[in-house]
Amino acid sequence: MTTVESVSADDHAQGSPARLTHVDDHGAARMVDVSAKDVTTRTATAAGRFETTPEVIALLRRDGLPKGDALAVARIAGIAAAKRTSDLVPLCHPVALHAVSVELEVGADAVDIAATTRTADRTGVEMEALTSVVAAGLALYDMVKAVDRGARLTDVRLVAKAGGRSGAWHAGGTGDTAGATPASPPQRTPGSTSAAVGSAVGSPDGAAPRTSPGPS
Amino acid sequence: MTTVESVSADDHAQGSPARLTHVDDHGAARMVDVSAKDVTTRTATAAGRFETTPEVIALLRRDGLPKGDALAVARIAGIAAAKRTSDLVPLCHPVALHAVSVELEVGADAVDIAATTRTADRTGVEMEALTSVVAAGLALYDMVKAVDRGARLTDVRLVAKAGGRSGAWHAGGTGDTAGATPASPPQRTPGSTSAAVGSAVGSPDGAAPRTSPGPS
Amino acid sequence: MTTVESVSADDHAQGSPARLTHVDDHGAARMVDVSAKDVTTRTATAAGRFETTPEVIALLRRDGLPKGDALAVARIAGIAAAKRTSDLVPLCHPVALHAVSVELEVGADAVDIAATTRTADRTGVEMEALTSVVAAGLALYDMVKAVDRGARLTDVRLVAKAGGRSGAWHAGGTGDTAGATPASPPQRTPGSTSAAVGSAVGSPDGAAPRTSPGPS
Amino acid sequence: MTTVESVSADDHAQGSPARLTHVDDHGAARMVDVSAKDVTTRTATAAGRFETTPEVIALLRRDGLPKGDALAVARIAGIAAAKRTSDLVPLCHPVALHAVSVELEVGADAVDIAATTRTADRTGVEMEALTSVVAAGLALYDMVKAVDRGARLTDVRLVAKAGGRSGAWHAGGTGDTAGATPASPPQRTPGSTSAAVGSAVGSPDGAAPRTSPGPS
Amino acid sequence: MTTVESVSADDHAQGSPARLTHVDDHGAARMVDVSAKDVTTRTATAAGRFETTPEVIALLRRDGLPKGDALAVARIAGIAAAKRTSDLVPLCHPVALHAVSVELEVGADAVDIAATTRTADRTGVEMEALTSVVAAGLALYDMVKAVDRGARLTDVRLVAKAGGRSGAWHAGGTGDTAGATPASPPQRTPGSTSAAVGSAVGSPDGAAPRTSPGPS
Amino acid sequence: MTTVESVSADDHAQGSPARLTHVDDHGAARMVDVSAKDVTTRTATAAGRFETTPEVIALLRRDGLPKGDALAVARIAGIAAAKRTSDLVPLCHPVALHAVSVELEVGADAVDIAATTRTADRTGVEMEALTSVVAAGLALYDMVKAVDRGARLTDVRLVAKAGGRSGAWHAGGTGDTAGATPASPPQRTPGSTSAAVGSAVGSPDGAAPRTSPGPS
Repeated sequence: MTTVESVSADDHAQGSPARLTHVDDHGAARMVDVSAKDVTTRTATAAGRFETTPEVIALLRRDGLPKGDALAVARIAGIAAAKRTSDLVPLCHPVALHAVSVELEVGADAVDIAATTRTADRTGVEMEALTSVVAAGLALYDMVKAVDRGARLTDVRLVAKAGGRSGAWHAGGTGDTAGATPASPPQRTPGSTSAAVGSAVGSPDGAAPRTSPGPS
Repeated sequence: MTTVESVSADDHAQGSPARLTHVDDHGAARMVDVSAKDVTTRTATAAGRFETTPEVIALLRRDGLPKGDALAVARIAGIAAAKRTSDLVPLCHPVALHAVSVELEVGADAVDIAATTRTADRTGVEMEALTSVVAAGLALYDMVKAVDRGARLTDVRLVAKAGGRSGAWHAGGTGDTAGATPASPPQRTPGSTSAAVGSAVGSPDGAAPRTSPGPS
Repeated sequence: MTTVESVSADDHAQGSPARLTHVDDHGAARMVDVSAKDVTTRTATAAGRFETTPEVIALLRRDGLPKGDALAVARIAGIAAAKRTSDLVPLCHPVALHAVSVELEVGADAVDIAATTRTADRTGVEMEALTSVVAAGLALYDMVKAVDRGARLTDVRLVAKAGGRSGAWHAGGTGDTAGATPASPPQRTPGSTSAAVGSAVGSPDGAAPRTSPGPS
Repeated sequence: MTTVESVSADDHAQGSPARLTHVDDHGAARMVDVSAKDVTTRTATAAGRFETTPEVIALLRRDGLPKGDALAVARIAGIAAAKRTSDLVPLCHPVALHAVSVELEVGADAVDIAATTRTADRTGVEMEALTSVVAAGLALYDMVKAVDRGARLTDVRLVAKAGGRSGAWHAGGTGDTAGATPASPPQRTPGSTSAAVGSAVGSPDGAAPRTSPGPS
Repeated sequence: MTTVESVSADDHAQGSPARLTHVDDHGAARMVDVSAKDVTTRTATAAGRFETTPEVIALLRRDGLPKGDALAVARIAGIAAAKRTSDLVPLCHPVALHAVSVELEVGADAVDIAATTRTADRTGVEMEALTSVVAAGLALYDMVKAVDRGARLTDVRLVAKAGGRSGAWHAGGTGDTAGATPASPPQRTPGSTSAAVGSAVGSPDGAAPRTSPGPS
Repeated sequence: MTTVESVSADDHAQGSPARLTHVDDHGAARMVDVSAKDVTTRTATAAGRFETTPEVIALLRRDGLPKGDALAVARIAGIAAAKRTSDLVPLCHPVALHAVSVELEVGADAVDIAATTRTADRTGVEMEALTSVVAAGLALYDMVKAVDRGARLTDVRLVAKAGGRSGAWHAGGTGDTAGATPASPPQRTPGSTSAAVGSAVGSPDGAAPRTSPGPS
């Protein structure tokens, strides 16, 4: 019994009979024990896509140049929200968040959002990266909703993680990362730093968190 | 000048030259003034879709029956997060949230999420509904991430709003609401109450908030 | 259906077939709709008892005199927590809290805690008063735990409420309010203002919130 | 002077002249220094009892079966609140909370609440366990208040702690833990997992946190 | 007694024997009752000055042009913090904040900060304006601390308020508002909108909140 | 690239070409990576001055003696706010705060505020000390605003820091610390413990954090 309870989520991904780690044998919610896990460097990158109209994109660009705050609001919303992840996700552990970067890439009719998080703690920061992406997306919606109520936030997903017992993971298909790391990035805009994602939170172990190993 | 500043987001949607209401003439972020708007009943419904694998759906169903908390965690995350919307979205007004319901409909390989919010206040609750959907989606991801890191939250959008100066709005195409109000709901699961959305937060004025993509 | 959904908790206490208002027909949690309720003045008083040892009481008195912060910490914890009630109680509405007072009465081996809350809003402030009491109790435990781990917080209950559709309510037995409004208050201590509870948050409508009308 | 200031609460429990550790020599509140304490595994279990009527218990059972959220709301409230402990208790340290479980046992006219918390950090998690219990109790009150305003939360106390300089501690009398670990648990209900408390957060060092060694 | 308790802070400023409104007759802290006050439009403007070195100012300008987020971070920090005022100031009421604008004016060796807040509620928003100023100042310090640990935030004060029972108030001397509304503003920088303060939150009653160091 | 990104703020203070560490090469805000920094003991002391009138000082003294909460409210506000620093300052890391003390020294027409923070973590606690000072100052303003709207918070600055890669730092001029550590402290008041600042959070390594503007 006891050992099962202190097993981490990572283990379940590696072969034990699958069940949801966040509920116990009786189906009751709990915050799973991670106290015995090691303090190691862990990173995660998540991405999403905010779809709107070319008219709104033009407004974002206009407001974004040369002194506008529109994109900064979304970036800062993403950074600040990452710090509140455990307040929003009931069974998520509080974590010592050590780095967050949010990048926004403004395309023809969408804004691609990517967030990278890093910690040296006992559990991963995937939820923090995902929370960062959705908060940036919500902030964008808030700013454009008067002119485009039909805007939507889509394809919010984990792109990569590294560190911890389960090691590195990348979203497999090329489609998964297409929005976040386009082969030919459309027209750069202020604040867009998509090329720097890998370096944004450093990469001391040599494993760039978002570069797909392979022909993706 | 003054009148421009106190103009609400709603007005901009109705013909004045478009610009982002949340930044001023110099592009600086601000919380737009809503103090002169009326206290009226306002509702909003947002939706999203959490895509995962049939294996995970089976786990959610198993844990969801007969006494599991998995779906409850997501529902409660959505309700609680709606109350924190203005903490997450930097330029969003705090609002007196008077009702929130979150419904989850478990399909073959996805969970459809819908959230309906209501207030009697000076500004709308669209952001609260959207925040509720993404929080429910994040909570689902948190619970299944050990078995499906590739799960994703997609198609987060406003489905309908009612009340306020700009009145009722519905997402135009039937496709927009298909996930949330399917013609033939797949296999009901515990806690799924999709048919009750219209009534979930009541409808004193007779205007069902989410039905009818017709000529309303 | 619709009318049932917008029925307030108060109604259920007055004869309709009992069920829990915070879950819908399918048992799913929701924040019940209060948008149609009137904005009226509503008050509530809750109480509890922090039981410890005479030695700890002596420390509280010593630290409390002439310049100690020990009791102030508990009072302020109670006031601050009342403002966060809807953050703690998942289905509880955010409310415009307009007054809070916390009184501590130090007895021989216990501290009686009472909190009175007031609002002019659409729903009551019972949860805020109860939250205030438990936060004051937790703060007391935190301060004495090094010398008395066995201290306990007990008899946390609603003492009275007034305002709203269901009107005034008082805890029935004299025993219920004995700790909070003792006939002969034991030895006053700094910060103790038990006699002033009725006036603590005013009483514009002439209805003292905690005095029982009649032989209750 | 200096050494006194960096002395932990634990020391005071072991013979030094008693005073409240959370106020300094002048009676001023402070957050006591724990930076020099070791990072070790620390656990705590707290308990409390929510007293209501058989009618309400029947409602909780009905809503709790087969798909109701009522008990889940209380459990999740307890878990989420544990993460906010240092927000509620003014002089309490923020702590890296690594596990939380909340169990609810529904009896004839009461719900017994127990919460177990665990960390690998520099200070204990007793306050987190107690906060978890009171939040679960507040959530229960919130859900039943329309049908039983006289419900109460009582006997909130620390049941056991382990780890840290002061080592293990258990509430002495059998009466102390009767509610939480009854010899013959009354009628199990969904989500009740009382027998699993000891294992709920694991026990890697072989010391079951709540079982009294000896004749207690 | 009762009437004294429900008297607002405003009254005390108008002749009654002075005492601190936030403590009762026994010196105990409380949140003073404002439930009987009218819902009216209330505004406040506060200001402060962040003093640093010309080198840091050059960095802020460089990072601020053409696409930097440095000033945006401070502005957004100020807006977001205004919404959390009642979380920070223990006896401060939660208020329905309806507008916030923060302006930063970059001078030769300082950044002048001004924040204007507005509500239609039962109590004023002076604390919100002041909180906004200090949060913007803290955010600036955070960004420059690596290059100027000696930077300081100074002259944080209320500049003007309007609305409510006590009506309009302006800081008396010209010196008081010199930093915020300089006769000859030094070199405008991106995001600086100091001339628009009066209009930033509108001025429906014709009383420009921050002008006129005259005979007010 | 990577190494630049993971460079800490401390490095920039020691000779590398100055730029703001909190924005990347494109000027985009980020939370800078500190995951590779060591866990070491770090302390900081900040100070500020709340200026008001002798009349208000008299009220604070009266309310402060013998049992008033006025100064306690400010002290507790400072301690509680230090724990929320990363919520207020967008790019600031969450940190494991291990000690906070706030001291208030009541002078003839001002209250000198000093806050000392300590952690054993990967980044410093300067922002926490500064946040503590401003929160105490805001709480004082809140309490006196009814009788002195013209009160102001001024000279908020870092006084000293110790620990971390950049080691100890002290504000250079004697004038900088005059308010916080006066040669001849004016009339002590309850709760004033200014002489104990150095010891307030202990000083295990023998380096008194705030003394000596000497040859350090």
